[in-house]
Amino acid sequence: MREVKIGFLGMGNVGSGAYRILRDNADVITHREGIKYTVVSALVRDKSKSRGDIPQQLLTTEPDDILCNPDIEIVAEFLGGVEPARTYILRAFENGKTVVTANKVVLANCWPELEASARKHGVGLYYEASVAGGIPIIRTLYSSMQANRITKVMGIINGTTNYILSAMSSQGRSYSEVLAEAQRIGLAEADPTLDVEGLDAAYKLSLLASIAFHAKVPMKHVYHEGITAITKQDIAIGKEMGLTLKLLAIGKKEDGQIQVRVHPTFIPDSHPLAAISGATNAVYLDCDALGELVLSGQGAGSMPTGSAVVSDIVYASQQQKHAYNTFKNDDNIPEISFNTNWESEYFVSVMAPDKPGILAAVAGIFAANNVSIASMVQKRTGEERVPVIFLTHRCRELNMKRAIEGIGGVEGLSVSGTIRVEAMS
Amino acid sequence: MREVKIGFLGMGNVGSGAYRILRDNADVITHREGIKYTVVSALVRDKSKSRGDIPQQLLTTEPDDILCNPDIEIVAEFLGGVEPARTYILRAFENGKTVVTANKVVLANCWPELEASARKHGVGLYYEASVAGGIPIIRTLYSSMQANRITKVMGIINGTTNYILSAMSSQGRSYSEVLAEAQRIGLAEADPTLDVEGLDAAYKLSLLASIAFHAKVPMKHVYHEGITAITKQDIAIGKEMGLTLKLLAIGKKEDGQIQVRVHPTFIPDSHPLAAISGATNAVYLDCDALGELVLSGQGAGSMPTGSAVVSDIVYASQQQKHAYNTFKNDDNIPEISFNTNWESEYFVSVMAPDKPGILAAVAGIFAANNVSIASMVQKRTGEERVPVIFLTHRCRELNMKRAIEGIGGVEGLSVSGTIRVEAMS
Repeated sequence: MREVKIGFLGMGNVGSGAYRILRDNADVITHREGIKYTVVSALVRDKSKSRGDIPQQLLTTEPDDILCNPDIEIVAEFLGGVEPARTYILRAFENGKTVVTANKVVLANCWPELEASARKHGVGLYYEASVAGGIPIIRTLYSSMQANRITKVMGIINGTTNYILSAMSSQGRSYSEVLAEAQRIGLAEADPTLDVEGLDAAYKLSLLASIAFHAKVPMKHVYHEGITAITKQDIAIGKEMGLTLKLLAIGKKEDGQIQVRVHPTFIPDSHPLAAISGATNAVYLDCDALGELVLSGQGAGSMPTGSAVVSDIVYASQQQKHAYNTFKNDDNIPEISFNTNWESEYFVSVMAPDKPGILAAVAGIFAANNVSIASMVQKRTGEERVPVIFLTHRCRELNMKRAIEGIGGVEGLSVSGTIRVEAMS
Repeated sequence: MREVKIGFLGMGNVGSGAYRILRDNADVITHREGIKYTVVSALVRDKSKSRGDIPQQLLTTEPDDILCNPDIEIVAEFLGGVEPARTYILRAFENGKTVVTANKVVLANCWPELEASARKHGVGLYYEASVAGGIPIIRTLYSSMQANRITKVMGIINGTTNYILSAMSSQGRSYSEVLAEAQRIGLAEADPTLDVEGLDAAYKLSLLASIAFHAKVPMKHVYHEGITAITKQDIAIGKEMGLTLKLLAIGKKEDGQIQVRVHPTFIPDSHPLAAISGATNAVYLDCDALGELVLSGQGAGSMPTGSAVVSDIVYASQQQKHAYNTFKNDDNIPEISFNTNWESEYFVSVMAPDKPGILAAVAGIFAANNVSIASMVQKRTGEERVPVIFLTHRCRELNMKRAIEGIGGVEGLSVSGTIRVEAMS
């Protein structure tokens, strides 16, 4: 029986999950695939650190024990970040090794360079684990959506923010309160910036949109806006209107223009993504032949993400010839461009004195900026200034920005929240 | 550029969808895959029948124009049923052609024979379109779940029955009324037996469970029970209890024993499958490493199912070496057996006279058969006989059958409905 030897770069949360799966499920994997998979070496920073059931003799602090080991066919990279991951991956390629990575950051930053090197050396680059943990969205896009023009990819692809928004929504608690709890139970980092500012989701969206639209979507084109300014009041008012708040990663391709954006988004309660709560992830695709497809599951964690890594290892080892992307913008096809002045519906919350004439003033500013109001609700709170909520029809982002500036410039008025609304497709 | 020539066996609903996708999306498919796909011939019964935009010169009534055409690399089969599909597929294999099929019936009946022949001739057999239309569940099982022991596969994989149950539930209408409507709008056949008796779902479950559990699951082991006896009253009472009724295809592997069954099933409203309504399909997997995964989308229709066929054509054409199953029971591994005396919770609706002592009698029969009652609700209707609803704890199927016989044997009592309940995992 063929044996595939694997070297790990890193043996942390995801690495140890992948290691345990390859060890504990070796019987089913080998029977099904006809191949034996063996982890022969793992790069760590500190060999003396206790790692439970991970055998000490696997560990090394010398990268070349893996990158230059002629027995190793596949290198699995779990280091995270750009360097030294990039350098190690390139060295693995030069030495004829296929690389499986869980590292969205190195991919989003260095994909063209990595892919060119893999192609040059005839080896494979696989990255199922880099987006949405265990959900097999990358393989689905490559191996099941070939028939389709994908027009929309939309995802809840950051578990931390979904946990925070779900708890704010179901328990009526404030952002800071729920964030503190998420940090306590290990669902949010001590420095939560990457998650709560939408940057983690933006990295993933850059990868997803590139594959879905068959065009390289560099990070610099991905707009991202986090959840730190979301108030429990906005969530509560949205709820009354049948809307659920999510941090959505949205990619759309309309008339050859791509828009990619991560921001808090209201969706109708009946939307397939509205019920995805807690740390669960989901990705929604809209395609011309297949229609809508939704995949949901565990987007993080040692075993789910380990499952994606092992799936890539098995898949990679079975390819006689590795596939590479042929992105449209590699060929300088002119039709691809990026659009930041997208159209959306908006939820706008304005704090205003509770007196006649205010609605007319705000409505006038919206109209002057070509923003059409779909509905309006004025809350009576007994306070001097009350929230007035506007839901708009589809309008352009820049028109909305100008309207908000205009409203903010009127004495006594302030915009307390602007949240994009994604209607059902 | 490489050109792959394809012959179609059949040009009906799914075939014409696949044809239109290959024609209309040729630009994206070819750019992405680097291969040109051309349908060169299609077998039909009647060449003179008008088929809209399908070119008449493609059509033939002679199977060997396709099966013996040396230019044709891939045969796509859309005939349905066992014969002549089986004979044609085998002949295609003998002539060195790979076959893509949307035909669950020929697969469920002849899989071992077909697979053995494909293996012998070194060609491929692909069948994504045979289960759940456009949802890529087959490819996901083979190419993304390799790391996992799958313990449960559960699906809403018949759109007709899901449409009927969804409409009965949301509109409080009767089975016969909604069935007639579904027939009128083309969602149910004139003879709906295959769908409403659970047979269509059973075919699909036989395929899904075989792949998920890595063991051949012949149709004869798949229990199936339809929705024809479901009353709007049962659905309404379940609703009050927070339960949604679905025709579920359930496969479980517990202690080496496989259970496969299709039957009406109550699931909690918060279950990921409860929100799948109308003709949408969904498949839920529970796996040891990945945890829960749900895929949902269009389970039928010309374009969604055509999407699955085209995906198989593209995928098949890229394989240097086709993969074949190595089912555990091919090797006569003794651990695999089938269990029909499964455990479940049950919803039992008993019509009983509204007088003291009845509950004691029923409870006694349940107890005598080792069935433990979780909750009971007695409806006051003003009628002489009233529905009494029992929800049980997990018990064995055979014990439940005996209890129901016992209750039916008491004068004045009758069991008006027994519906299995699938709790959250």
